[in-house]
Amino acid sequence: MTSVSIMGGSGYVGGELLRLLFAHPECELQIVTSRKYAGEPLYRTHPNLRGITSLRFQKEDLESVAAKSEIVFTALPHGKSLEVVPKLLDYGVKVIDLAADFRLKDAANYKEYYALEHTRADLLESSVYGLPELHRAQIKDANLVSVPGCMATAAILSLTPAIRNGWVDTERIIIDAKIGSSGAGVNPTIASHHSERAGGVRPYMVAGHRHTAEVDQELSSIANKTVHVGFTPHAVNMIRGILSTAHTFMLQTLEPRSVFKGFRAEYENEPFVRLISDKKGLYGLPNPKLTLGTNYCDIGFEIDPHSRRLIIFSAIDNLTKGAAGEAVQCFNIMTNHDEKTGLSMLGIHP
Amino acid sequence: MTSVSIMGGSGYVGGELLRLLFAHPECELQIVTSRKYAGEPLYRTHPNLRGITSLRFQKEDLESVAAKSEIVFTALPHGKSLEVVPKLLDYGVKVIDLAADFRLKDAANYKEYYALEHTRADLLESSVYGLPELHRAQIKDANLVSVPGCMATAAILSLTPAIRNGWVDTERIIIDAKIGSSGAGVNPTIASHHSERAGGVRPYMVAGHRHTAEVDQELSSIANKTVHVGFTPHAVNMIRGILSTAHTFMLQTLEPRSVFKGFRAEYENEPFVRLISDKKGLYGLPNPKLTLGTNYCDIGFEIDPHSRRLIIFSAIDNLTKGAAGEAVQCFNIMTNHDEKTGLSMLGIHP
Amino acid sequence: MTSVSIMGGSGYVGGELLRLLFAHPECELQIVTSRKYAGEPLYRTHPNLRGITSLRFQKEDLESVAAKSEIVFTALPHGKSLEVVPKLLDYGVKVIDLAADFRLKDAANYKEYYALEHTRADLLESSVYGLPELHRAQIKDANLVSVPGCMATAAILSLTPAIRNGWVDTERIIIDAKIGSSGAGVNPTIASHHSERAGGVRPYMVAGHRHTAEVDQELSSIANKTVHVGFTPHAVNMIRGILSTAHTFMLQTLEPRSVFKGFRAEYENEPFVRLISDKKGLYGLPNPKLTLGTNYCDIGFEIDPHSRRLIIFSAIDNLTKGAAGEAVQCFNIMTNHDEKTGLSMLGIHP
Amino acid sequence: MTSVSIMGGSGYVGGELLRLLFAHPECELQIVTSRKYAGEPLYRTHPNLRGITSLRFQKEDLESVAAKSEIVFTALPHGKSLEVVPKLLDYGVKVIDLAADFRLKDAANYKEYYALEHTRADLLESSVYGLPELHRAQIKDANLVSVPGCMATAAILSLTPAIRNGWVDTERIIIDAKIGSSGAGVNPTIASHHSERAGGVRPYMVAGHRHTAEVDQELSSIANKTVHVGFTPHAVNMIRGILSTAHTFMLQTLEPRSVFKGFRAEYENEPFVRLISDKKGLYGLPNPKLTLGTNYCDIGFEIDPHSRRLIIFSAIDNLTKGAAGEAVQCFNIMTNHDEKTGLSMLGIHP
Repeated sequence: MTSVSIMGGSGYVGGELLRLLFAHPECELQIVTSRKYAGEPLYRTHPNLRGITSLRFQKEDLESVAAKSEIVFTALPHGKSLEVVPKLLDYGVKVIDLAADFRLKDAANYKEYYALEHTRADLLESSVYGLPELHRAQIKDANLVSVPGCMATAAILSLTPAIRNGWVDTERIIIDAKIGSSGAGVNPTIASHHSERAGGVRPYMVAGHRHTAEVDQELSSIANKTVHVGFTPHAVNMIRGILSTAHTFMLQTLEPRSVFKGFRAEYENEPFVRLISDKKGLYGLPNPKLTLGTNYCDIGFEIDPHSRRLIIFSAIDNLTKGAAGEAVQCFNIMTNHDEKTGLSMLGIHP
Repeated sequence: MTSVSIMGGSGYVGGELLRLLFAHPECELQIVTSRKYAGEPLYRTHPNLRGITSLRFQKEDLESVAAKSEIVFTALPHGKSLEVVPKLLDYGVKVIDLAADFRLKDAANYKEYYALEHTRADLLESSVYGLPELHRAQIKDANLVSVPGCMATAAILSLTPAIRNGWVDTERIIIDAKIGSSGAGVNPTIASHHSERAGGVRPYMVAGHRHTAEVDQELSSIANKTVHVGFTPHAVNMIRGILSTAHTFMLQTLEPRSVFKGFRAEYENEPFVRLISDKKGLYGLPNPKLTLGTNYCDIGFEIDPHSRRLIIFSAIDNLTKGAAGEAVQCFNIMTNHDEKTGLSMLGIHP
Repeated sequence: MTSVSIMGGSGYVGGELLRLLFAHPECELQIVTSRKYAGEPLYRTHPNLRGITSLRFQKEDLESVAAKSEIVFTALPHGKSLEVVPKLLDYGVKVIDLAADFRLKDAANYKEYYALEHTRADLLESSVYGLPELHRAQIKDANLVSVPGCMATAAILSLTPAIRNGWVDTERIIIDAKIGSSGAGVNPTIASHHSERAGGVRPYMVAGHRHTAEVDQELSSIANKTVHVGFTPHAVNMIRGILSTAHTFMLQTLEPRSVFKGFRAEYENEPFVRLISDKKGLYGLPNPKLTLGTNYCDIGFEIDPHSRRLIIFSAIDNLTKGAAGEAVQCFNIMTNHDEKTGLSMLGIHP
Repeated sequence: MTSVSIMGGSGYVGGELLRLLFAHPECELQIVTSRKYAGEPLYRTHPNLRGITSLRFQKEDLESVAAKSEIVFTALPHGKSLEVVPKLLDYGVKVIDLAADFRLKDAANYKEYYALEHTRADLLESSVYGLPELHRAQIKDANLVSVPGCMATAAILSLTPAIRNGWVDTERIIIDAKIGSSGAGVNPTIASHHSERAGGVRPYMVAGHRHTAEVDQELSSIANKTVHVGFTPHAVNMIRGILSTAHTFMLQTLEPRSVFKGFRAEYENEPFVRLISDKKGLYGLPNPKLTLGTNYCDIGFEIDPHSRRLIIFSAIDNLTKGAAGEAVQCFNIMTNHDEKTGLSMLGIHP
């Protein structure tokens, strides 16, 4: 049993963490902080917890958080983590951070994409990018795990086998993502206003989206050369979920069979990557609908000889495998528990 | 560990049963039948089970089903259960039936509402209406449990305390229900065609809906007199979920406090009824969104002195508490397990 | 050709007015004011006008508005109209007001429902409730027309024939409304946040909703006695549209034929009321989907002998017949144009 | 005034044609055929026409259709047009065909993509591809106009300036489309079942989609060399609308200003192409939401130096500019009317 706390627990990612941790048999939740809701019951912002817990948000007190916790999940805004995380580390607790502040190894990239000076670049080397499928061994021993961005998770997992196997032109990778509204967080804006969001498809940050930097970093490392992906997200009429469509150009003629084999070689022991091989029926390719509330990343592909494309699709729930679920998966690795502990829920259909 | 089978497992209710039973620690799934999909893997129609099981549908063979099962769930069309259930009972297995064929005690009502002759009226007396909150003791010892209709579950649970306490005019009860598309089942029709269903609200079977008969039966029994409710459903743009709005006229001046007390008296020990007392925030009254995939029935109310109404809202997931979850709850009662076994999942938000 | 201006043109109702007036052959738009967006092009808040007009919002200057306009549409917040409208009238222009400030004849009701002191109760008698189907003659000669609330329009039109003909118990009228998110206006709030609004049904202001007062006022006038309706709205996953379900108890046995005759007698010459008599197919009862962007109010009914109910359904687009379209209809009456001028667009399907 | 008829008027495209033609001041509708609904009123399948017309579907009688019509719109299934259109031409009427049968100049492509032998390849040369922006002059004099596929319209219009100006690598063009459910037509299938379609994003026919052939044909003609686009559609939770995202790789460094100039040069006189230059606000790039029910094609773009992409977005209503509206635009050209006749409706917002 591990003592954990959550700092910044009132947003959608904080809520998803709470849902998962309340059902987790190996952790004991100590403190959940929220500056805005301190004193209020957790179910005030997370109504799905009504009848489950009478716990309340507490104000941000690093010392008592550190005193009571072995591992702290930080679900704070970008920039704010930069302040808080180093202090928690100084207190000797381990941190699983859900902001972007410690994801990029190169502080210059952080400045470029987040328009903030990185004041603790000294921590970037030891911080581990929390994608278990790529960095499991380092996560195990890390003091600071930085959980990937939701769209980055989907994109990197879909492209890793293609790049590792040298199948595709790494200079012309396109990722066209479709994402639900929860990805924009809990604060109402005109972009997330139901009357505006429903009924349409809205491209946004179509060049220069922040997750581009993480995807480049991880794929470059696999490719052993600099990769600059073309990444473009679209806001669709869905609450949770990401479908990432990676369009790549094949460098050679590929057979479905051998591509599938490459994917299986990469992921066959992964508890949360489901490869779709059976094309029959309506769900022969990934659809985020089927990952709702689960930690799965579904991956499928198709070869298009006409345009010489290998098209790779991946689907996740942006709040689960794209954030809180991935964080819990990291937690399980760090605490030597079975990786599926607390994450074995099945998805619903329809 | 109890051996169970499902007859008619390819529809949405069958799929939800499978989702719940695969996660149930006390039951062992033997056979899942489907005339249409015999030989196909379960995930063909239930894609959420992909990667979870390689089990296949089998053809309908009552003898082998009965031989291998202690309890059989039947999720067959109305009329078909009438044929199959008695044979299963003859084989000595217990049956939890999800069709309407054994819900109504009066065979004449069955004929009126379902336009079918009831050929086994002899079984109606011993069949138990599977609403644990009202019939727990009988469910425990039943050989045949008939799981309530989805909208009936929501309506009956919301109205029981008001009728039992004599608060409201039983001659003028109105139930205005809003239901998601999964309630219409897996077979595509123009009514469930996305282009028609999305973007609107469609009243349907606004007088004479079949669930009226069940609601009347149960409420009459509580009221100790004949109750004829006015029941009107509306198809809304939602997949799973029912919101039942019961408009009742108060016979006396009521205080929120005493009404709440009456509801608590009825339900305080119920594991799946959540009473909403805290009105703050967006979820001060039930919203089916928060019950998605769970077995909860959320209940809340408001007093309107202006029109002398007591308005009672209840929300459920039509496939879970409205069908498969309720069936599993009955199963737990029949097998002496904790009623929450296999049903403890939290809802998601947002 | 009539010179018109709009005060408060940046909200959803203002935008709908602009859409209608740009297509109106008999009016010349002069000034559109917005305190917040003064200087910006209209298409900044109304992107459907991009490519249609390069007009810009102006700041609120009553004198120049009055100087340039024969009729002014005011689409200002409640309370604000109370200030502005009397001044415009003093300048000698006619006003079509879309706020609630001049709808209620009894200033005490205004205070009760809007929590504001009515400072110009002297104008309430001469102000005309802008529902053409009930007050056409007075609208024609009015200096101040107060356009009804969206849900009030739907409810009053559906109930008028039933009350006028003495068919139903006026002491037990229930209106259960389902409304789209645009009814809540353009300002983002957590209630209209896509992640919260989509995927559920949320009852709100279930007792004491402000439109109750208008409905009571108009129906009481028809009934010649005090009517207190029970009115309860529900927020559904839809952008535009209202379905009003009026549950009434019949005082006598009614035949569909004679009810339909009563509705026809009331509305046969109405250009925007469509009575649905043909029950075949998916749209045998009103569905707001079919009124999208039009000024129609679709009405249909069903008799339920089982509960002695006459159930009357009405559907409108809350921004058109529920606000801006009704305002333009009033404008046409006031300016002696054919009532359908500028309002003849057909709805879309699907 | 031109006499027109519609053959195959009961589907979604037929219904949209009816909506447009009833509001068209220069055409007189004679006969609307439907084999399935002959004898039924038009509003049986097009409920938006209720109260507008009492016209009925007639059975398919080519002789009387030809006798009464100068121009016939055929909205028949692929393959069926192949039979009917030549006969109509033989009768001496002009035809605007909405099927795919006469779109492809090369009969071999038709066979490859539609799996049908083209029995009237002799007509392919004189048939005109009905995209006014590219083929206006030929449409004017054509006897047979073949209206483009919906996704092809969006894709071709977005890519034409980029190819004509030699800005991009024509060997690596990717079109990632997002489409609403009405694109799949009126017949219910499991893919269009609300419970399956809503709540997700489903890639389908991700390689080899039929519209690929048209896009290749038109873009090759502009490029003066063979172009094979990579085309991949996704079914999203929307009723009407297409967003086409064209990812292209720049052959040179481009400035937004000069790209915009190139687009303006191509489209400045086009009545239905709206170029979006103002990036402020929520609608700085195309969103199909704003084209609902209109004949507009909205186009916008962004340059991504990071990946050397020119990303071009286009949005249309698949039933209007993507089918029936484009057909009416062709009709206006063929009959020498202003191209906007009957097509001047503004879109709605929100």
